[in-house]
Amino acid sequence: MTRLQDQPHQPSLKAMRGSFLDFVGDPFYVSEAESVRYFPDGLLVLEDGKIKAFGAYDELKADYGEIPTTVCAERLIMPGFIDTHIHYPQTGIIAAYGEQLLEWLDQYVFPTEGKFHDLDYAREVAETFLDQLLSNGTTTALVFATVFPQSVDAFFEAAEARNLCMIAGKVMMDRNAPASVCDSAESAYQESKALIQKWHKKGRLRYAVTPRFAITSTDEQLQKAGELLKEFPDVYMHTHLSENVKEVAWVKELFPACEGYLDAYDQAGLVKERSVFAHGIHLTDGEFQRLSEAKSAIAFCPTSNLFLGSGLFKLEQAKSTEYPVKVGLGTDVGAGTSFSLLQTANEAYKVAQLRQQKLSPFQALFLATLGGAKALCLEDRLGNFEVGKDADFIVLDLRSTPLMAFRNSPDAAKSVSELTDRAFSLIIMGDDRAIESVYILGELAYKCADTKAE
Amino acid sequence: MTRLQDQPHQPSLKAMRGSFLDFVGDPFYVSEAESVRYFPDGLLVLEDGKIKAFGAYDELKADYGEIPTTVCAERLIMPGFIDTHIHYPQTGIIAAYGEQLLEWLDQYVFPTEGKFHDLDYAREVAETFLDQLLSNGTTTALVFATVFPQSVDAFFEAAEARNLCMIAGKVMMDRNAPASVCDSAESAYQESKALIQKWHKKGRLRYAVTPRFAITSTDEQLQKAGELLKEFPDVYMHTHLSENVKEVAWVKELFPACEGYLDAYDQAGLVKERSVFAHGIHLTDGEFQRLSEAKSAIAFCPTSNLFLGSGLFKLEQAKSTEYPVKVGLGTDVGAGTSFSLLQTANEAYKVAQLRQQKLSPFQALFLATLGGAKALCLEDRLGNFEVGKDADFIVLDLRSTPLMAFRNSPDAAKSVSELTDRAFSLIIMGDDRAIESVYILGELAYKCADTKAE
Repeated sequence: MTRLQDQPHQPSLKAMRGSFLDFVGDPFYVSEAESVRYFPDGLLVLEDGKIKAFGAYDELKADYGEIPTTVCAERLIMPGFIDTHIHYPQTGIIAAYGEQLLEWLDQYVFPTEGKFHDLDYAREVAETFLDQLLSNGTTTALVFATVFPQSVDAFFEAAEARNLCMIAGKVMMDRNAPASVCDSAESAYQESKALIQKWHKKGRLRYAVTPRFAITSTDEQLQKAGELLKEFPDVYMHTHLSENVKEVAWVKELFPACEGYLDAYDQAGLVKERSVFAHGIHLTDGEFQRLSEAKSAIAFCPTSNLFLGSGLFKLEQAKSTEYPVKVGLGTDVGAGTSFSLLQTANEAYKVAQLRQQKLSPFQALFLATLGGAKALCLEDRLGNFEVGKDADFIVLDLRSTPLMAFRNSPDAAKSVSELTDRAFSLIIMGDDRAIESVYILGELAYKCADTKAE
Repeated sequence: MTRLQDQPHQPSLKAMRGSFLDFVGDPFYVSEAESVRYFPDGLLVLEDGKIKAFGAYDELKADYGEIPTTVCAERLIMPGFIDTHIHYPQTGIIAAYGEQLLEWLDQYVFPTEGKFHDLDYAREVAETFLDQLLSNGTTTALVFATVFPQSVDAFFEAAEARNLCMIAGKVMMDRNAPASVCDSAESAYQESKALIQKWHKKGRLRYAVTPRFAITSTDEQLQKAGELLKEFPDVYMHTHLSENVKEVAWVKELFPACEGYLDAYDQAGLVKERSVFAHGIHLTDGEFQRLSEAKSAIAFCPTSNLFLGSGLFKLEQAKSTEYPVKVGLGTDVGAGTSFSLLQTANEAYKVAQLRQQKLSPFQALFLATLGGAKALCLEDRLGNFEVGKDADFIVLDLRSTPLMAFRNSPDAAKSVSELTDRAFSLIIMGDDRAIESVYILGELAYKCADTKAE
């Protein structure tokens, strides 16, 4: 598939040539002509891990036709996928049987997360987790660790060694969970602060203050989380919100003075621009409006929402023009049943269909790339092929199974219109096998073992 | 993985040794102890394509310990999967974008099915379709062809050449579709009759009288279908029922004299023991009761129901003790998004969760095997490892992806209880890669190319 041209007259430059798809606008708000960018024969020029130039090959060949170039025939190159909500310690309990949210936490999650007191165990799982992310084409994620600070260290060490842009944080949890996985308001504050000072903005790493959810944090602990956000205004906040009907009712009991679930976070100062709330299935109109005003984001996690029977996210309400809320896709492994954002997009399509809504393939792929970058306030450096951004990208094979090969032509689609059907087959039929290779800062970081020789 | 023992003192006998799972009762009605049969170290003895003996290896080794034996270490052997509703001509339009049922038929299905006038094209697709079935572990299916008799010939020829037990029929369709894919009441009758005489009970093949659905058949044509069932009492009837809200409303307009959708079929004599109705999402209580009394079956097609946004099937109502209805799983390709009954079981679990119901892994695997055989009235010869049944079975790898290998131990589960969690991971995370090999009448018919050497 690849060939190298051997006249590097600008030694630090290299390029990828092939079909490229990315987004320059939000296809929920503007037309495909204004949002989808597709070059059937494009060139991506890289320098020092960043994008130096990007466009049609014919237009760039005069300047860059002679630099070392990897040619990807019969493939589609996209920005790396961005997973806006996932739990690395739950890698081993993916697909645990038979419960809805609160019982699932008690029966599976808390016992498993207890093991991450052991740094060596945490390191081992962190490596497996990152292998899974890359083999599914995910290059950046917003990640729950556990209550143990060493589980955060293990994760960030592993991510740093691979040059990955990752956001993570220590779980804060001081009630309604076994003592073995609880901290206190004060220890959560102190430990989180130390981790922020150690890891936040170290290279490509970012820290997220991470109360699990309002049920397992006292109001005192939520206030401490708010203090951290004031002290460190550019760290993230990552939690769960309105996932399950029973959960919403319980929060109302626990916070009788609050207007609703979101308000429990809001009164602690946790509803801000870098705040990401997973799920948001049972939000009121007023809560959508508040999230819009605060510029907070929702992580839409359809495989998890279906697997736990939580419900159907109102994507069209989040993407309204009146009160637009930033939305990314989240796998939510281990309640999510796959690390693949393609399979997650498949389930997002089905959730939309059940709600009599349409989700176009480009809207879904936007959510998995630039939409995720915007949700994580990383669109200045990730999410598409704009010049100057970090060169994290993936090479996709749209004929990665016999059935996809039967369905899809090997030739590059000639236009966005012709690409629509194949892009749709990618999100409906694609899985980890569709990810042929992954590049981080312009360097090959993963190559699928099944790759067919050519 | 395999080894042969070389002392065939009974030359026509051979055996498989490994872990075996099948069902001897219905886990929706009786306990797992009474329905799930599991041998961690079992022996399946085969003679002339049939099951000669089956049980724990220790109990059978005295009699059969010396015959040629294929040993499957670290694998699970199950009866072949049975798909109770699928369209072979739609193989190439799997994952077609953006419509619900009626628009999807007009935009994608009718134009595609028109191509099956060409026998060579039909033959090519039939081979691809059967390749897909086998590579997903499906050994028997109830199959829609198209309106063209030659499309039925192409399918049955291909199935016969592979010794497969398949049920199929010519679509009957004389209104509300393009003329190019319509027949008439009389021609449908004559052509179906000729196909029954040619193919029904030829070897392992069976014929199904196949009106597409009440919208595309006049009452006159449905009556003709009923005549065929009277003339040939052991052929099947295969159609669609109550899939989509708009469809149900349209049927009421078209059949004003009928009490409801099912009644349009019932008045034509189409609601019988060998009648299989796909979907049944919007059935009334009375319709469930009528299906129960008639001993008809429903094909539950969750990936299709979610993909087209049709709705959530009330499985618990079909499996009630008061009015039990036979149920099998259907992929419903091309509205279904996968040929895999494992992935279909995954979606069935999610449909149940959204309805606040539980579907156990054994219940799901029952539906895919013995449940499907019962729905198709084939339980006398297929569905489990009872002595005397046909030896169609599959060898499953519960560690077929890196993530499943991380999650599941290589050692055989020691008990049904220990198997539960792994069986669940199989239906939630498994896909075609989990199908290592497929045997038809005791002969190897498919082997996964990815199989790891050992």
